[in-house]
Amino acid sequence: MYMFKDKVMVYDTDYQGIAHYASYYRFFTDAIEGYKRDVLNLQTNTINDNIWFVVVESKAQYHKSLHINDEIYVELYPKLSESKKALTYNLKIKLVNTGELCTEGYLTMVSINHKLWQATEIPEDLLKKIVKSAD
Amino acid sequence: MYMFKDKVMVYDTDYQGIAHYASYYRFFTDAIEGYKRDVLNLQTNTINDNIWFVVVESKAQYHKSLHINDEIYVELYPKLSESKKALTYNLKIKLVNTGELCTEGYLTMVSINHKLWQATEIPEDLLKKIVKSAD
Amino acid sequence: MYMFKDKVMVYDTDYQGIAHYASYYRFFTDAIEGYKRDVLNLQTNTINDNIWFVVVESKAQYHKSLHINDEIYVELYPKLSESKKALTYNLKIKLVNTGELCTEGYLTMVSINHKLWQATEIPEDLLKKIVKSAD
Amino acid sequence: MYMFKDKVMVYDTDYQGIAHYASYYRFFTDAIEGYKRDVLNLQTNTINDNIWFVVVESKAQYHKSLHINDEIYVELYPKLSESKKALTYNLKIKLVNTGELCTEGYLTMVSINHKLWQATEIPEDLLKKIVKSAD
Repeated sequence: MYMFKDKVMVYDTDYQGIAHYASYYRFFTDAIEGYKRDVLNLQTNTINDNIWFVVVESKAQYHKSLHINDEIYVELYPKLSESKKALTYNLKIKLVNTGELCTEGYLTMVSINHKLWQATEIPEDLLKKIVKSAD
Repeated sequence: MYMFKDKVMVYDTDYQGIAHYASYYRFFTDAIEGYKRDVLNLQTNTINDNIWFVVVESKAQYHKSLHINDEIYVELYPKLSESKKALTYNLKIKLVNTGELCTEGYLTMVSINHKLWQATEIPEDLLKKIVKSAD
Repeated sequence: MYMFKDKVMVYDTDYQGIAHYASYYRFFTDAIEGYKRDVLNLQTNTINDNIWFVVVESKAQYHKSLHINDEIYVELYPKLSESKKALTYNLKIKLVNTGELCTEGYLTMVSINHKLWQATEIPEDLLKKIVKSAD
Repeated sequence: MYMFKDKVMVYDTDYQGIAHYASYYRFFTDAIEGYKRDVLNLQTNTINDNIWFVVVESKAQYHKSLHINDEIYVELYPKLSESKKALTYNLKIKLVNTGELCTEGYLTMVSINHKLWQATEIPEDLLKKIVKSAD
């Protein structure tokens, strides 16, 4: 498990006074980018000259609304597909001050050869780091 | 079924040259707002002084990447829950020029009394309009 | 002068119940993209394989707040620099129903050779179209 | 002067491979929110039950493009208007690793009584903190 601290900013909110539903994907992205940087030693979705991570599925369930300035933890649980071509990030957003679960969801990314636009196995060195971090 | 025409703008794209995964929720929102305006005769998520629609779940599956200036249709299929407290919008994004299915997903909104923050039945007049549009 | 009709969406607003200041740049962008498409017959900022438009300056003055679902006109007045390397779009946002001026500002784009990242004269055929539209 | 460290995220970029011009206002906002929290001890634009800060002008000049994962410092220099009703934040974005100036601009906010929507003097305790931080 990997944890990322984040904050609800003014641009995440809408006229209903709570975070806009699509903003939670910004928090998910922030945590995933943190994981890629800190754990996979990878900057962005560019794995190497040939291979990219591309998002194929995203989902969020909103249990409790977030408000401006709420401080949150995003918990990230990585899970490899059997084909070793896809990586799912299971994500939970919790309030820092109460620990309450506010949102949960996931993002699935596929490793593709972006010149052929074809799914390809995630490189061995990344696989090892992912497996290790999932323990 | 309701159809909304939309377009991939520069601010929907990211450095990978394709639409950022969270931008598809903008297209979903545009279609839902169109439906609410054209079919439900409703502006925004404010149903009346007491009742709001609040998003409780969102999902998208990305089959084919969208690029800047792509013209798209968003097809919207509304579906009421049995409790009549929740409304799911099933959504499909297709390219205007080929008809190809690029993205599908849904948004579920719950009708809540926003003063009590409690789920409540969708008002009768809206229910009728939703049922009629789903035929 | 070129005119573009637009609308304040839920994702343009923030918790203060009005459009977030940075969202007005989305309306500016929408109008500029419309102008490029309709008048310059140009898709996006890519002029040709070598030349891009790149934004070098942006400004907005907010006279009156916009609210969700406000229907607006964006008026666009193009102005070439003497060097013929820069194009400024002067922009005014007005409410459709009252004509009231809500926002004014500008965006300046420079024509650059993006391989050398160096300012270069805007191609002749575009210059003609710009001059004609500014009459 | 106040300094805020920030980072260019995937959602700040566009298909041209650089940060979208409007994203720089996100960095400006992040720095201003940091300043309000750390220096003014103020959360958001809500000063008290009656008074809000509302943005009346924003400007940015882009000297050098930012790219995904660029680490940046935003330098913030607050400046009060003579009327004590407006506060301008002068802002400079510099690359962490080279110190190079990439962007400069400002945001001006006015203190308004949001019930009357009328400019009003910034409360005395805030004025003191602003003056002190500007030394």
